[in-house]
Amino acid sequence: MSVQKATNIHWHAGNITREERWAALKARGCTMWFTGLSASGKSTIASALEQHLVSRGVHCYRLDGDNIRFGLNKNLGFSAEDRAENIRRIGEVAKLFADSGCVALTSFISPYRKDRDLCRELHEKDKAGASGGGGMPFLEVFVDTPIEVCELRDPKGLYKKARAGELKGFTGIDDPYEAPLKPELVLKPERMSVEESVVACLDLLAARGVITR
Amino acid sequence: MSVQKATNIHWHAGNITREERWAALKARGCTMWFTGLSASGKSTIASALEQHLVSRGVHCYRLDGDNIRFGLNKNLGFSAEDRAENIRRIGEVAKLFADSGCVALTSFISPYRKDRDLCRELHEKDKAGASGGGGMPFLEVFVDTPIEVCELRDPKGLYKKARAGELKGFTGIDDPYEAPLKPELVLKPERMSVEESVVACLDLLAARGVITR
Repeated sequence: MSVQKATNIHWHAGNITREERWAALKARGCTMWFTGLSASGKSTIASALEQHLVSRGVHCYRLDGDNIRFGLNKNLGFSAEDRAENIRRIGEVAKLFADSGCVALTSFISPYRKDRDLCRELHEKDKAGASGGGGMPFLEVFVDTPIEVCELRDPKGLYKKARAGELKGFTGIDDPYEAPLKPELVLKPERMSVEESVVACLDLLAARGVITR
Repeated sequence: MSVQKATNIHWHAGNITREERWAALKARGCTMWFTGLSASGKSTIASALEQHLVSRGVHCYRLDGDNIRFGLNKNLGFSAEDRAENIRRIGEVAKLFADSGCVALTSFISPYRKDRDLCRELHEKDKAGASGGGGMPFLEVFVDTPIEVCELRDPKGLYKKARAGELKGFTGIDDPYEAPLKPELVLKPERMSVEESVVACLDLLAARGVITR
């Protein structure tokens, strides 16, 4: 292997700090955590927000069932223990994305307050991690669609199966959904268009200094 | 909540594809997988490369023991099963970063060929995932420092403990290190400066179209 003389590579021993990273990338990371019932509209809104941010050149990435349940978390089932571990891993991965300077969007029912609060804590308390610096914004977005509306939509027929007893432990039917007590944002998809919801998310991101409008 | 009229939000139903994302971000994702013995120099080189890329404005993120073992994988030990799961999860997370348009660097001993090959397969076969498109580059970088050199360095005193029998299953002492058969790059830290190793990595990234020189 011929070795090229490196004249323009400068580095310091040790890790780059979060501040150095975000400043160099002209980016600020955060996690926007969408929570709500099945068929509430979480993924539609998060996907539209992702498209908008990416089209503006903002590194943004969405974690959802498609890329998590069949990948990182494919060895988890639906027991209480596995559900908690599912959300914990998603929280940890979102935190890594946020640390990297990316706007991480997560789109999971995440029905239990305790699990979501753990993810919030992971972000807000990560002040002295590998890359140093202050905690990271964790923005909880409650997609507040009434269960009657979700059940009418039922795009995958899951509510029907749950009502028929073919699906056990289905959120909103025979398992509780614990609504956030102090979400950073509440969206009402049955009264707002997808575009209006995206604007509300952008306003929140701008208010927190994550993006500029 | 006052709803601002959204006149400049455009989106299409469904997910953004990987091609659309990478084009909009003017970025190409990949995973550069550093493998080698403990104290071989993996993290020093990966950290220097990360600093250089980030300073150029390239989204780059390093997964290493500091941010993985104490976070995502804190519930894993050192049994054979847990070691395989450790590497599998790292491979899945690196793949998500690569998909997002980030240059993911992983810095783990990852001694078993089978585990590394699984991670390669995850990347190269992910052609029809959530965000569509072709497979993603997986660049295996063998940090080939002889064990005698690693053992002399021994910054954490781990080789000493392993020789004394206080650490069981230590790679290179009483557990095998399976060197890559066809790594994309071999670095020889005892004969190359950190800067020269970084340049070799940059050359490889440029040759694969991940960055421009």
